[in-house]
Amino acid sequence: MIKVGVLGAKGKMGAQTCLAVDEATDVELVAQLDHEDDLAELTKASTQVVVDFTRPEVVMDNLEWCVANGIHAVVGTTGWDEERLAKLQSWLDAAPGVGVLIAPNFSIGAVLMMQFAAEAAKYYESVEIIELHHPDKVDAPSGTARRTAELIAAARRDAGSAPIPDATTTSLDGARGADIEGIRVHGVRLRGLIAHQEVLFGDEGGTLTIRHDSIERVSFMPGVLLGIRNIVSTPGLTIGLEHFMDLA
Amino acid sequence: MIKVGVLGAKGKMGAQTCLAVDEATDVELVAQLDHEDDLAELTKASTQVVVDFTRPEVVMDNLEWCVANGIHAVVGTTGWDEERLAKLQSWLDAAPGVGVLIAPNFSIGAVLMMQFAAEAAKYYESVEIIELHHPDKVDAPSGTARRTAELIAAARRDAGSAPIPDATTTSLDGARGADIEGIRVHGVRLRGLIAHQEVLFGDEGGTLTIRHDSIERVSFMPGVLLGIRNIVSTPGLTIGLEHFMDLA
Amino acid sequence: MIKVGVLGAKGKMGAQTCLAVDEATDVELVAQLDHEDDLAELTKASTQVVVDFTRPEVVMDNLEWCVANGIHAVVGTTGWDEERLAKLQSWLDAAPGVGVLIAPNFSIGAVLMMQFAAEAAKYYESVEIIELHHPDKVDAPSGTARRTAELIAAARRDAGSAPIPDATTTSLDGARGADIEGIRVHGVRLRGLIAHQEVLFGDEGGTLTIRHDSIERVSFMPGVLLGIRNIVSTPGLTIGLEHFMDLA
Amino acid sequence: MIKVGVLGAKGKMGAQTCLAVDEATDVELVAQLDHEDDLAELTKASTQVVVDFTRPEVVMDNLEWCVANGIHAVVGTTGWDEERLAKLQSWLDAAPGVGVLIAPNFSIGAVLMMQFAAEAAKYYESVEIIELHHPDKVDAPSGTARRTAELIAAARRDAGSAPIPDATTTSLDGARGADIEGIRVHGVRLRGLIAHQEVLFGDEGGTLTIRHDSIERVSFMPGVLLGIRNIVSTPGLTIGLEHFMDLA
Repeated sequence: MIKVGVLGAKGKMGAQTCLAVDEATDVELVAQLDHEDDLAELTKASTQVVVDFTRPEVVMDNLEWCVANGIHAVVGTTGWDEERLAKLQSWLDAAPGVGVLIAPNFSIGAVLMMQFAAEAAKYYESVEIIELHHPDKVDAPSGTARRTAELIAAARRDAGSAPIPDATTTSLDGARGADIEGIRVHGVRLRGLIAHQEVLFGDEGGTLTIRHDSIERVSFMPGVLLGIRNIVSTPGLTIGLEHFMDLA
Repeated sequence: MIKVGVLGAKGKMGAQTCLAVDEATDVELVAQLDHEDDLAELTKASTQVVVDFTRPEVVMDNLEWCVANGIHAVVGTTGWDEERLAKLQSWLDAAPGVGVLIAPNFSIGAVLMMQFAAEAAKYYESVEIIELHHPDKVDAPSGTARRTAELIAAARRDAGSAPIPDATTTSLDGARGADIEGIRVHGVRLRGLIAHQEVLFGDEGGTLTIRHDSIERVSFMPGVLLGIRNIVSTPGLTIGLEHFMDLA
Repeated sequence: MIKVGVLGAKGKMGAQTCLAVDEATDVELVAQLDHEDDLAELTKASTQVVVDFTRPEVVMDNLEWCVANGIHAVVGTTGWDEERLAKLQSWLDAAPGVGVLIAPNFSIGAVLMMQFAAEAAKYYESVEIIELHHPDKVDAPSGTARRTAELIAAARRDAGSAPIPDATTTSLDGARGADIEGIRVHGVRLRGLIAHQEVLFGDEGGTLTIRHDSIERVSFMPGVLLGIRNIVSTPGLTIGLEHFMDLA
Repeated sequence: MIKVGVLGAKGKMGAQTCLAVDEATDVELVAQLDHEDDLAELTKASTQVVVDFTRPEVVMDNLEWCVANGIHAVVGTTGWDEERLAKLQSWLDAAPGVGVLIAPNFSIGAVLMMQFAAEAAKYYESVEIIELHHPDKVDAPSGTARRTAELIAAARRDAGSAPIPDATTTSLDGARGADIEGIRVHGVRLRGLIAHQEVLFGDEGGTLTIRHDSIERVSFMPGVLLGIRNIVSTPGLTIGLEHFMDLA
């Protein structure tokens, strides 16, 4: 049983993580801390892995302390840049047995969709992305759609793919979507939807569609658990859940 | 057996119509004319209904002659405006038993999609349209998508619907599609596709999707035959195949 | 403001109805009763419409009392048969101003899907139904899928449609789905789904798909409110929400 | 330029292959043989690779001759069993530089769909397959659906996955589809469709769908060309196009 502590335990993702760790049979919830709590409780409870769903303002302090105390970390908190990653790397260099996973997306389905899209990219003449979300979302396209487009564009560059065909000469403004490194991306906003994405590949006579639908926060928990189970034996810095997924 | 003549019989749609009329058991192909042929062959063959898939430059002469000779017409040729329709109406006023159907779209599926979309419009908070076509198409969005958006917008105005919710504040140019009377329309262009459209309606907790896929020219033939069978008993000018469809 | 009382107010659907009535601006929640409460509270609160989400064992007593006291009813409770409907009708005959709506399905989207499917049925050679639900559902196919199949089969009989083509000669048991009056129905059970249905129509060269997705109980509330708003001016017995939907 | 000969050049797939080889810039069509033609024409034309779309009755003779004459082969002809494969292997053992590819499916999209399905299988609690074809197909489910189910079942066995949840206790015969090694498979037959398949994976709160649509015979040509380009440098027997696809 891996002993797990949750930082940000009263937040939405943190609370969900506490439930998920509680239910799983191979991990044990030993500490639930929120912003007023003392990190020392983690060592008192012999925590092996922390899951951090806190805020950019506190995550660096949390990780410095955890790494120094030999506690592995699975991090869903955002706000990472080159400088922060370098600092974290330096702490890890000084603690050779400790592992930290930073995951921009804990949805295993989203990670699979991006991986498959990157693999399929070079075999198709055409590709477009449609992401569909609830209408309260403030940005378009979604971060996952942007990342997918970048991965596909990179795979096409590597394969020396020709530009995607498009004979459009007359168009209403916006009709053909946003252009991300040559990949067209469309953002739909509809009440009744949560978070969905379709990647469409096409070639003469056939198409391949990869679609991911996420309808509840709980859908991230298998990814969090996958992170916990793997980080204990993966020293150093790992960025992206896909490194713990045994793809192909 | 309704005796049918085809104008533009060597064009793609005309040739397909000849085949379809030939195969149907309640209509009979009695004349196939192309641009060099004499319209008088129609009366010689006792034609009751002509199907016109010619060009805007000749369709008016064809119809003037047919109406004057008591021949009904089913017209797929484009290029209609107020002036042309008024002229056609004046010919029909002088020939009370004759009927002419002008159909912008002979796809029964597309007509059903548009009708259903117009009916559903007032029950939903959100609606968006995605049309998907082969990459050789020059205009975006498609004419069917524009028409669908207009019908939905009109239905929402009649019902006094509130504006469609959309919290987007940060957006890449084009990500949220084209705006047609307040309805967002996205145009996808992908090798391997032919002509497809999805209308998505959404409300708290649920969505309704109406999708039409057209993969061959032959898909327009049931609509052409429906026009032929009904125009013989529908004097005057009829615009739109939906008038011959017994909806709801 | 229509004064509304909820029977079965502590059940899942009843509680959701209380919230929805509370939030809507043209109706007012004046009474919330559960099984131990006295119906007389309804008249004390001047209730105009009750919404009944109780159980088959008590719904008849509830309705007899409400009709006798001049209170309209919107009923989601199940268990109706010919005998029960006849008894309810006799009570309504004796109370000419009172209206009762019995709705097997309060989802406006599901009702639209069924209506559209019935309208489209006669125009297509082929049709099949796929319903998709969470894996805790005990029956297959769903009641909505059965009802949709029956409506489509009736529309095809009325139109004199030929049997649906199917050349299958070698088949694994179950591969072609269940047969409901000649319509093939497939039931998918998948973790992560809630309640979904697709009706697929096909003809030479084209298909039309109508899909309904319901992901939360709240999706039934617009239908409940539609019932409340209409039953006050619809004396007698109404079966099915579609009668309050101005379709086509 | 790889010199290519086509066996069965007047059949549907053979004729399509001749067109595709003709159009591609890195391969050259040097021989088109049909059943009455002499295989010696292949060597006269310095053929490097043959593509065989003939019949089970003649394919063995064709391959024995080609292998003996140092000509590589890409084979789409069906009817392979252990005995035939063993015989072919023995011929190849005696001709160490020669390569033969036997591909049950030349659709790159179908191969990708199967690969991705096999990769995703272990991450999901639920999975079902829906294949959709034109109504003239005689077998259900399709061969691709069976193969996909077998690959998914094997991946789940390897991962020690629990049985797929299904609470169904009341079911119309066939409603839950066919059972292939524990995977439910549904076969839809609809006029207007060609060849399509969806693999649906589901977990608490999210689903992943992989869909392949094939609408024309031409969609197999990129796979045939991929086979030609790779078999010249892949001595021995290769079964399945996936071995020439650089997946993950």
